[in-house]
Amino acid sequence: MRILVLGGDGYLGWPTAMNLANKGYDVSVVDSFHRRLWDDEIGSGSLTPIKSLRERVRTWNKVGDRSMEMFVGDICDWDFLAGVFKETQPEAIVHYGEHRAAPFSMLSRRHAVMTQVNNVVGTLNVLYAMKEFTPESHLVKLGTMGEYGTPNIDIEEGFIEINHNGRSDIMQFPKKPGSFYHLSKVHDSHNIEFVCRVWGLRATDLNQGVVYGVHTDETELHPDLATRFDYDDVWGTVLNRFCVQAAIGHPLTVYGKGGQTRGFLDIRDTLACVELAIANPADMGEFRVFNQFTEQFNVGELAEMVAEGARKLGWEPTIEQVPNPRVEAEDHYYNAKHTKLLDLGLQPHLLSDTLIDGLLETVREHSELVDRDLLYPSHSWTEGQLAKPVH
Amino acid sequence: MRILVLGGDGYLGWPTAMNLANKGYDVSVVDSFHRRLWDDEIGSGSLTPIKSLRERVRTWNKVGDRSMEMFVGDICDWDFLAGVFKETQPEAIVHYGEHRAAPFSMLSRRHAVMTQVNNVVGTLNVLYAMKEFTPESHLVKLGTMGEYGTPNIDIEEGFIEINHNGRSDIMQFPKKPGSFYHLSKVHDSHNIEFVCRVWGLRATDLNQGVVYGVHTDETELHPDLATRFDYDDVWGTVLNRFCVQAAIGHPLTVYGKGGQTRGFLDIRDTLACVELAIANPADMGEFRVFNQFTEQFNVGELAEMVAEGARKLGWEPTIEQVPNPRVEAEDHYYNAKHTKLLDLGLQPHLLSDTLIDGLLETVREHSELVDRDLLYPSHSWTEGQLAKPVH
Repeated sequence: MRILVLGGDGYLGWPTAMNLANKGYDVSVVDSFHRRLWDDEIGSGSLTPIKSLRERVRTWNKVGDRSMEMFVGDICDWDFLAGVFKETQPEAIVHYGEHRAAPFSMLSRRHAVMTQVNNVVGTLNVLYAMKEFTPESHLVKLGTMGEYGTPNIDIEEGFIEINHNGRSDIMQFPKKPGSFYHLSKVHDSHNIEFVCRVWGLRATDLNQGVVYGVHTDETELHPDLATRFDYDDVWGTVLNRFCVQAAIGHPLTVYGKGGQTRGFLDIRDTLACVELAIANPADMGEFRVFNQFTEQFNVGELAEMVAEGARKLGWEPTIEQVPNPRVEAEDHYYNAKHTKLLDLGLQPHLLSDTLIDGLLETVREHSELVDRDLLYPSHSWTEGQLAKPVH
Repeated sequence: MRILVLGGDGYLGWPTAMNLANKGYDVSVVDSFHRRLWDDEIGSGSLTPIKSLRERVRTWNKVGDRSMEMFVGDICDWDFLAGVFKETQPEAIVHYGEHRAAPFSMLSRRHAVMTQVNNVVGTLNVLYAMKEFTPESHLVKLGTMGEYGTPNIDIEEGFIEINHNGRSDIMQFPKKPGSFYHLSKVHDSHNIEFVCRVWGLRATDLNQGVVYGVHTDETELHPDLATRFDYDDVWGTVLNRFCVQAAIGHPLTVYGKGGQTRGFLDIRDTLACVELAIANPADMGEFRVFNQFTEQFNVGELAEMVAEGARKLGWEPTIEQVPNPRVEAEDHYYNAKHTKLLDLGLQPHLLSDTLIDGLLETVREHSELVDRDLLYPSHSWTEGQLAKPVH
């Protein structure tokens, strides 16, 4: 089965591509390297040393079970994308090829516009390419649990039956996203639902939680196959940042009250979910939504778990509450359904102390590379650039 | 009170600007003339002869009670828009400055991308300009009833209380739009709700039905103040097209079964609604949604009403069913609430035979200008360009 992995140079795209190749799929990776460019803009970088995509693919094609191809270009460029579709004739498209950070999208008007244009146009191009060249292919699109926000009712998987004034309909679950980035994924979801309904395309929208971890079966095969690990305030997700802070003896920075609850999952479960979605495709004309996470935690609980793991290693972690740069509920109801991937056979890797120990040790190996200036929020949702300590 | 009318050269923008000026508001109109450019692309044009915006404003400033200013430029160009905000310091922004036709957005990938980028970026720029220069100003944004689609439950005004598993929340009414154009307005609505919630801006989203008519108190003051009248398959709305068809003895072309039900309103009611929204602004931080229409009809009923009006004038109208170029339900439940504007004092002009007679006579005056090639659908939602008769 021929698969395109869009954004195949990214944190999840690269391990996904290797995983699918090792499972016998015929994989082509596509990337524009915007993520690496934006690292230069922010002054951030992966804590784990990573190789160029060319070096990664070269190494993979020596050590992996099945080689892959790479295409370098921007999916917002129609001529490029059309060429890739014509050459590879994909049967499934795994779409990680989007701008992916809430804080980045809130830095300025330019960043907000860039995020929404990049994500919406890239996805529209993919949909038109599917319609024109591979109308039976299956789109596996990475969305985010952040599309839903934190409603006061249970979050269903994409759709909800609404009973109203004696009538009922099954409708898309209403969205209340928390940043221009999350909004861009809401826009995508509406565009994708439309083309499934009107053109008969098929798609699975994976509303993914916060991913942690860097180790997969394939990254372990060779040091040059490592995936990136972001810990800064713009790209780093919360568990990764806490681990880095614990490893260098920096206080774990909890934003506000820490009652913000989200869904989380291990990077290995991301790979398994994507593979399950491909192996069990949506029907023609179907727009299917899976909530892709395995456990719910709030930010305060996560800080405690990381601190506990660090104490077991003999470290002395502290937790610090810092002003929340985001505008979000810090104490709220949260109960999101996530049974559809379990029904397909997902075997979750839960966040045990063991895993946190492993993550902490990986991070400490590279702790001399940590840039402390990147650990505090640099911008707020309302105030723009923030004063922050410079070391 | 200082008001910006974005898209002030358009079908509704121009009459709105004149109406507000005559009501004592201090009006500046902004337009990029993309609508006139797109006429050249489609080969379409206003049936009523219209003047350039410069000539319109010059005439208005002679005959109107209060003069207006004009700014020519694209709101997607931040430097231009920021300059307009700094110079005019608007207290309310009436935002008609968007691409506005479902068929145009479905012509090709290029048209879909252009529609969504133009509308989303223009509106993001307006929101950032409000935040930066006039944070207390009130955005009056033209949305569309087409954002909702045709759900099997009553359509509420923007929000619905959902009871689910023993809990409840008031959420944005789920959207199921029918074209890339309608989708662009859904994207806007989500972006606007977000900035009201997070930045404390205030906005009224007017989900407008299909507007008909060309005569307002101000257009009658001088022939050079006429607004445009579109009847072609791309820009023309259904009632206008039926009137043109009746006036030239062409069959009234009903798409499919004709059971498609929509909300409709008279152009004078559009002007009154916008004025009511300005005079009764949203609170700071409030995102408010009004469903802006006065009556519901299905397409078959409308054809019958126009035919009946034509028969009263002694004409001999016929009705023809043509294949539906759109993908939409042709027989469905439809009951959309629209009480909020009535509560503010709207006095609707209902679609009586009298009005249809007036419209039909206006159209017949210009009937020698009708291009018959523009009366049949030229593109379909699924098939692309259609073969059509050429006269």
